[in-house]
Formats: sequence, structure tokens, C-alpha cells
Amino acid sequence: MADLAHNITLVGAGTIGLSFAALHLTKNPSCKVTIYDTRPDLQAYVKQHLPGYLIDTDHDACLARLIFANDLQDAVKDATVVQEQGPENADFKVSIWPQIEQHAPANAIFWSSTSGIPASVQGAQMHDTSRLVVVHPYNPPHIMPLLEVVPSSQTSQVVVDRTVSYWRALGRTPVVVKKECTGFVANRLAFALFREACSLVSQGVVDVKDLDEIVQASMGPRWSVAGPFKSYHAGGGEGGLASFMEKIGGTVQECWEASEDDVRKGAITVGGVWQGDVCRQTDEAYGVVATAERDEKTRKVLAAVGRT
Amino acid sequence: MADLAHNITLVGAGTIGLSFAALHLTKNPSCKVTIYDTRPDLQAYVKQHLPGYLIDTDHDACLARLIFANDLQDAVKDATVVQEQGPENADFKVSIWPQIEQHAPANAIFWSSTSGIPASVQGAQMHDTSRLVVVHPYNPPHIMPLLEVVPSSQTSQVVVDRTVSYWRALGRTPVVVKKECTGFVANRLAFALFREACSLVSQGVVDVKDLDEIVQASMGPRWSVAGPFKSYHAGGGEGGLASFMEKIGGTVQECWEASEDDVRKGAITVGGVWQGDVCRQTDEAYGVVATAERDEKTRKVLAAVGRT
Repeated sequence: MADLAHNITLVGAGTIGLSFAALHLTKNPSCKVTIYDTRPDLQAYVKQHLPGYLIDTDHDACLARLIFANDLQDAVKDATVVQEQGPENADFKVSIWPQIEQHAPANAIFWSSTSGIPASVQGAQMHDTSRLVVVHPYNPPHIMPLLEVVPSSQTSQVVVDRTVSYWRALGRTPVVVKKECTGFVANRLAFALFREACSLVSQGVVDVKDLDEIVQASMGPRWSVAGPFKSYHAGGGEGGLASFMEKIGGTVQECWEASEDDVRKGAITVGGVWQGDVCRQTDEAYGVVATAERDEKTRKVLAAVGRT
Repeated sequence: MADLAHNITLVGAGTIGLSFAALHLTKNPSCKVTIYDTRPDLQAYVKQHLPGYLIDTDHDACLARLIFANDLQDAVKDATVVQEQGPENADFKVSIWPQIEQHAPANAIFWSSTSGIPASVQGAQMHDTSRLVVVHPYNPPHIMPLLEVVPSSQTSQVVVDRTVSYWRALGRTPVVVKKECTGFVANRLAFALFREACSLVSQGVVDVKDLDEIVQASMGPRWSVAGPFKSYHAGGGEGGLASFMEKIGGTVQECWEASEDDVRKGAITVGGVWQGDVCRQTDEAYGVVATAERDEKTRKVLAAVGRT
């Protein structure tokens, strides 16, 4: 995929679809983007909302490279890539891929933006599952660099390679996840910290806003520059992570055990009694979040670490 | 503490002591800093190593405001704040505070940089435990803005208030933790994610370097700008966090359950069989980390979010 002259068909024109459209159009000046959605007002809807996702670019030039399609067969017939972000349920995905496969060119590859339905499940009724791979964005994809590339055991290496080189060429950060697993990697990590956050808040150790402040003034900036392994490896000095575990391991283990106890005692499961108070506190702390301001700051942070 | 003309006595001249010395000297031009340590080469040692912590400042002017002490009584006799970063064991801390208390002025307040020994334990042999509060930095404190202020139930509100206003006046981010708990908040959160990271790597889902890359390209930048509650609150749209939990809660719960299963199956406890391979991978990925480069990048990220 050194050649970026792609025809990319987006299936689904929700917020992820629009964000990906903006990303392809701004970062890949030689691509054409087709947006497929069954909504009757598709063209008007996209023209109204897409400009909000187009940053530092000529809106008209971008819109000129957009094609609208209400018919799936039409939408995919010239595609080199079909990128799906339809409803997040397995039935939808299982049923749409055979239709796409039937009408797309033989060498087109297929990406699903799912946050949790693995390619091995989605491909159940496909003829050739080697073409399908999950490309899970971290929202919103026109801002955040990460793309988790999650092949099934049947996805071909060529498809993985083409996927990775496309995103690299666009300056993004595709990372291949080696085994399909529940929630993939980014959400697994984030939700693990989030559960601990919910547990600490529900115990009254810290309130919602102070917990966020703690993360924003410590792990956030640190992990923008060096992930957890690199950070603790540095923390161990010359002996690295092994030395860190030797020196600080006792505290780490105590924390892990305290977490388990607290999560169990607090019954920190989704829909538990704790949830109402945590949601109420969050609502009181933030009201409606100004995402445009958040995204602008995030872009500054990304620029500071050389990511765009 | 609107008046910043402090005499700050640092007990312990290790890396945290030097980092705090640099922080006080650069951010508080009217303070004097006394460094106490029993090492006989104290003055030579500090003069050699402190400049590495002094950024964008006149080294000589900073060093001119430094006093060296090998005698504890001398070191604390004029202090307004005594800040301890000695050996991380309870016996040391329990035994040193009564000596400090005996010789420091009556209105001096006491901070411990401990990462895990609560003030309620440290103060066991003190006459007046209301003066002692934990001020736990996120390393290194001359770079990272966070200070977890963790009072015991006996710490006076005046001491907490003076502590918070001092650090705010220096442009740092002090956050008061409401209840003493194992590991305080920042490490509890970071270690929860770290355990999940170790679990995923030891299962072969992702390797060490790719996991770090995932965090650096997603949560790191995001959480620099908006912590987990604010982020998921935004993710829920107008309905906020409650709506997020409604929509994505199923996936969150699946991830939490998968984590528990995997951590149990992988026996992800400190010193477990998994640890050798993870440490080896980390060592191969990074060798010796260039912390100066990491710190410089971190400062750029902090500047991007308006923290210094």
C-alpha cells in the first residue's frame, strides 16, 4: 500500500464514520471516499456534520472527493478498502460481510471498527475470511493516533501488512494485536484503571474530579511519553524493570491485593449500587464536556510528542 | 502560606531529596533549603548531582540558598517545613519524627514523601501528630506536577491547608486524598493498569513494546487532557457517564470479567512465573532508558496542557 490512491468505502455514517472520512480525506490527498448509509438524508447530513471533523484543510477540496451511496452494491463495487462502522452487534456484522464480499473487487480488503466483536465472529458467513481484519480506533480517530489491528487466525498476513502500511503512511499508529481477546488491548487497560477509579471513589478515598486531576497531573503526561513498562523500567535504574519489581514489588503486591478486596467489597460491577453516585458526581463535576476544546488540547499534546 | 519565605529542611539527599531541592529552589525564589543527610560527603555529593535537576535557572543563585547539615538538630532548628524522604521503612520514620518534633520550631509542619507508609503509622511516637501529613510526589517531583496530600485522621486542617497553598503557589498540583489507603491513589490506579498490562503480555496478546505504544498513542495523551471520568462522561454524549455505562457497560463488564479470569489463570502476582519473561522483554525493548530525554518530552506535554 505504498500507493495511497485508494477508493475507501465507509459503511456507516455515524460519528466514527465521519471521523474516519475526515481522517482519510485530510491525511491521504489521493484517496476517494465513498460513504454508504441507509439514511435517506445522507448527503445533507454528511455535508452538515463533516466540516466539524475537518481540521486545517480545504473543506471544499475534501468534500469534492466524497461520494454518497444509499446502495451497498454501488458503494463497494470499486473499493480497494471497505471500512465498516455499522451497529455494534454481531448479527449485523455477520450478515453484511457476505454482501460486501459479493460486490467488492476481489483484491479489496475489509476493516471493521468494532470495539469488541472479533473478526473470527464477524466472518462466520463469509466465503473468504482472510480479507477481514478489525481496525479498532481510539475515539475520535481523526484526532487519536492509535489503531488496534486485530486479525483473526484466518486473516492473511498480506491483509495485515497492507493495513499497517496504509495507516503508517498516514502518520498514524497501527499496532497489531497478536491474539483476539475480549475488548482488545486499549480498552482492557483503560477499563482496568477505570474499575480501580470507580472503586476508590465509591469508597470515599477521593472524589471524581480529584481523581481525574491526579491522572491528568501524573500518569497522563508520563504515559504520553513512555508507556507503563518503559516507565517502570526507567524507575528501576540500571537494573530496569526487574530491579523495580525487586525494590517496589512489595508495594505493588499490596496494592493489587487491596484492589481485589476493595472491588469485591464494593461490588464494582456494571450496574452495581456504586454506579449511581459515581455518575451523579461526574455529572456535577463536568456537566456537558466541551469536546472541541478537549480535542484541541489533545492535538497540542500529540504535537509535543511528535504524533499528528 | 501566601508568604513563600520558607526555610525548608529536606531530610534525606537521595534522588527524591535532590529533585525536591531543585523544585523548591527554582519555583520559590524566596526560600532557603537545608539538606540533611548522614553521608559524610554530603556537600560534594549535592553540588555534583543537584545541577542535573536544575532546569532553566541560575545554578549558582540556587546553590547559594542551600545549607548542608549532618546534624539533625541543626538542620531543623529554624525550619518552617521539614520534608522527609529517608529510607522507605516504618521503623526509620517512626523513630525520626519525635527527634524532628523535639528540635523544630513549634509552628513548623512536617511532610513525608513516602509512597506507602501512612502518617497515622509514622506518627506513632510523636507528641503532636497533627503536624504530620504525607506529601507523596509522582517521580521525579521537579518535573511531575502531582503531589498527593494524604492526612491522617489526626492531621490538622491548618496543616493540610498550608500544605496545599504552598504547592499551589509553586504552580504544582496538590490533591488531597480523603482517607488513608494502601498505596494512595496514583499508584493504585497505575498499578491496576500495570497488572492488566502484565497479564496481556504474559498471555501473548501483545508484546511489551507494542503495549507501551498503545498507551502512548491513546490513553496517555487523552488522560493528559481529561481523566477517565471526564473522558467517559464525554463519551456518553449528552447523557454523560450514565449514558456511557448504559451503552458500553456490557463491554466494560465483559472486560472486567476477562481481566479477573486472566489475572487468576496467569497468576499475575509479584514474583510469579510470568515476571521473568516480561522483565526480559522490557530489557530487550529498551536497554537503559534515557530519562533526560523522557523528562524533556514530558515537560513539553505539560506545557501543552498549561502545567509547568
